Amino acid sequence: MQSLQEKASEWSGVNPNDAFAIDETNLYQKLGLQTFINLSTNFYNRVYDDEEEWFRSIFANSKKEDAIQNQYEFFVQRMGGPPLYSQRRGHPALIARHRPFPVTRQAAERWLHHMQQALESSTDIDSDSKIKMLNFFRHTAFFLVAGDELKNQKQSIACKHAASKPAAV
Amino acid sequence: MQSLQEKASEWSGVNPNDAFAIDETNLYQKLGLQTFINLSTNFYNRVYDDEEEWFRSIFANSKKEDAIQNQYEFFVQRMGGPPLYSQRRGHPALIARHRPFPVTRQAAERWLHHMQQALESSTDIDSDSKIKMLNFFRHTAFFLVAGDELKNQKQSIACKHAASKPAAV
Repeated sequence: MQSLQEKASEWSGVNPNDAFAIDETNLYQKLGLQTFINLSTNFYNRVYDDEEEWFRSIFANSKKEDAIQNQYEFFVQRMGGPPLYSQRRGHPALIARHRPFPVTRQAAERWLHHMQQALESSTDIDSDSKIKMLNFFRHTAFFLVAGDELKNQKQSIACKHAASKPAAV
Repeated sequence: MQSLQEKASEWSGVNPNDAFAIDETNLYQKLGLQTFINLSTNFYNRVYDDEEEWFRSIFANSKKEDAIQNQYEFFVQRMGGPPLYSQRRGHPALIARHRPFPVTRQAAERWLHHMQQALESSTDIDSDSKIKMLNFFRHTAFFLVAGDELKNQKQSIACKHAASKPAAV
């Protein structure tokens, strides 16, 4: 059986070395807090204004300000800065926290489309950092797709078992 | 509704500041790789030899060498060292990766019992680092209990829905 990491690499086309090249440099020290706040603000402005209703609706129950803060605090923490996210919300637990959302391949691609646009429009981020971040985001997006499929598998097994109970009794 | 972090704090008795005091010092630089390997080896020797069969059986389908490597690579990465875990296995995704296991409060306490013993028997770790690590472990263990309960809630809702389908058709 393929691991989450293997699925993420195959589906994203990004191997783990490229995905985690964000760890070769301390991007937080290089870019600074405000750059991360700006990037997440830019990204979520695009998401909440998306002309694709199916994608926009995934975020309908979350406040934009909260989505921005959750995202930049995670990025800061993961890319060499202080553990802002964990101090406030605990472990990232990325797959579990995405459980309420339908993280399909199509949704991953749409997320990446907006992030690529947000990165391209950012003048504070050098091109080497942009490449590293985009590889990390692409690999992570498909890691979450792999996590989402795992969830569906497990649930259907649990439900089959539940459904067969009356017959077995 | 209480967040995962709030539940982890309440149930463990460890507040987030104490839990993430591991980030105040770079424990990897202070302690070194071999100390983490020794700690995880010591810990899993105790777990795989546990006289409590119900706890030992949780690990029955995992090879001890793999359990040791997964654990020390995660600790190294989370406590200031190179991202060994993510390079090999991707994001920690702690809750999702614990889904196959029954992470009850009783299991959390038993895990912590063995970890406390392993820490106490370690002569390579100073007492300040031991306190920081134990607070982090205790908070994290109950964070996973909170994640486990989330899983059960979601599954029972999904199964109820599945069970009611035939009647609705």
